Amino acid sequence: MNRIQLFNNIIQKRSFLCVGLDTEIEKIPSFLKKEKDPVFEFNKRIINATHHFAVAYKPNVAFYESRGSDGWISLESTVKYIKKRHPDIFVIADAKRGDIGNSSKMYAQAFLKNMPFDAVTVAPYMGEDSVTPFLSYDNKWAVLLALTSNKGADDFQYHNEDGIKLFERVLSVSKKWGTTDNMMFVVGATRAEMISEIRKIIPDHFLLIPGVGAQGGSLAEVSKYGLNNKCGLLVNSSRGIIFADNSEEFDKVAGEKARELQLEMEKYLLESNLSIQFQT
Amino acid sequence: MNRIQLFNNIIQKRSFLCVGLDTEIEKIPSFLKKEKDPVFEFNKRIINATHHFAVAYKPNVAFYESRGSDGWISLESTVKYIKKRHPDIFVIADAKRGDIGNSSKMYAQAFLKNMPFDAVTVAPYMGEDSVTPFLSYDNKWAVLLALTSNKGADDFQYHNEDGIKLFERVLSVSKKWGTTDNMMFVVGATRAEMISEIRKIIPDHFLLIPGVGAQGGSLAEVSKYGLNNKCGLLVNSSRGIIFADNSEEFDKVAGEKARELQLEMEKYLLESNLSIQFQT
Repeated sequence: MNRIQLFNNIIQKRSFLCVGLDTEIEKIPSFLKKEKDPVFEFNKRIINATHHFAVAYKPNVAFYESRGSDGWISLESTVKYIKKRHPDIFVIADAKRGDIGNSSKMYAQAFLKNMPFDAVTVAPYMGEDSVTPFLSYDNKWAVLLALTSNKGADDFQYHNEDGIKLFERVLSVSKKWGTTDNMMFVVGATRAEMISEIRKIIPDHFLLIPGVGAQGGSLAEVSKYGLNNKCGLLVNSSRGIIFADNSEEFDKVAGEKARELQLEMEKYLLESNLSIQFQT
Repeated sequence: MNRIQLFNNIIQKRSFLCVGLDTEIEKIPSFLKKEKDPVFEFNKRIINATHHFAVAYKPNVAFYESRGSDGWISLESTVKYIKKRHPDIFVIADAKRGDIGNSSKMYAQAFLKNMPFDAVTVAPYMGEDSVTPFLSYDNKWAVLLALTSNKGADDFQYHNEDGIKLFERVLSVSKKWGTTDNMMFVVGATRAEMISEIRKIIPDHFLLIPGVGAQGGSLAEVSKYGLNNKCGLLVNSSRGIIFADNSEEFDKVAGEKARELQLEMEKYLLESNLSIQFQT
């Protein structure tokens, strides 16, 4: 999917919501456990209930990989299901991969060629040749970690050379490796105040923003600092949607939670300089 | 496996060789392709031919993951085979994982609990809470990226705050998260001249050294700068051993290549201050 297609979907749905499929098998409603693949069954129902309100899904690969080859099958089934039913939805493998060139090439192949993901999250520590293999597929994306939402972000990401923090260097160096059509950056919602600084370095790139909801980030702040003239944001919510309810109606509740976020996003989109592009 | 057990195996085999199982399916001898799981069959024969000369194996997860759930099955079979036949051999999942705490916990579970790996390679960018989940299993290890062997290492790892380079900060900060009994560090052989600087920060930790052989690093230099009084080195060779030959005798040739490296390592061990511990 290219940037214009993604933007058009955002305009059409009035949403920049990404639903995080952090599907921990212990947390899914017990009535699903009798299914052959309970995780896939759970995901299917979440997708059916939320796809009107979301422009993206983001399976967190850790939760699949923790179940070995069985988990890998759930992951493959999930991304295929989304892309078959909703080819206009952007699907991100939240895998945080990154290795020397010939290994990164294999990781890119795993997600972008063998599975129909649109994007993979990638760790920057090993530099250019660890990232470029993810940029070699048409209309596919690398989503590079810049400033993360967790406490450990303070350990190294602010390491400061001549006034330039590491995450700023990651942004300014790595943006030359690709384009606004094949690179996005992860910026945690818990660091929303940094987004206006980040927008000075990368005004036009899409940002993938985790940390809204359970981790405490504010959608209002993220939108205020992050929206650009092509929206430029994908805001992720995982647990706040998919595990909002544990009954047989979990999917209905998930749909309502996604709808609430979509309505809030619609408000920010209409207030922004994107408003002229809506048929209001 | 704990550090003393690992050291004892090194002394017994007079080797600190780690064989990298970067088993790219396209590169394995064609006569194996008729097997049900050609990658596992290849690995089995490599292991049978090299285990006398190696103290560790390191499957590169990228090469398995690129084959989806089938690849994951090959990986599971390989680590189980090694641990069943050779419980005294240290097995590292070269996965370069790292995510926020609850996700890293899942990755740690995948490799250290659900599969019998002794260690996982971990990326440092997201800081402490992304690494500590890998330190919570008895006698298991996190192997943290410090200074890597690839060209891209120059992009960020030398970012310098008040004379302290990022990789030095990674070493000095992260060594407090664990101990010499549950943390190792990746230092590329192509940066051998940096090892004596690194030994000033972490004199006692084991280093996992990739990049000898195909990537051009020198075993003599690595040994000169890196050996400590408990050896403190695991030197990896992948392609130079496993793909040294492509005939039906590939495993015999792999064994010879591993034997050559072991003999060279024996020489450096005997020359080092470890020599008193050998029955020479």
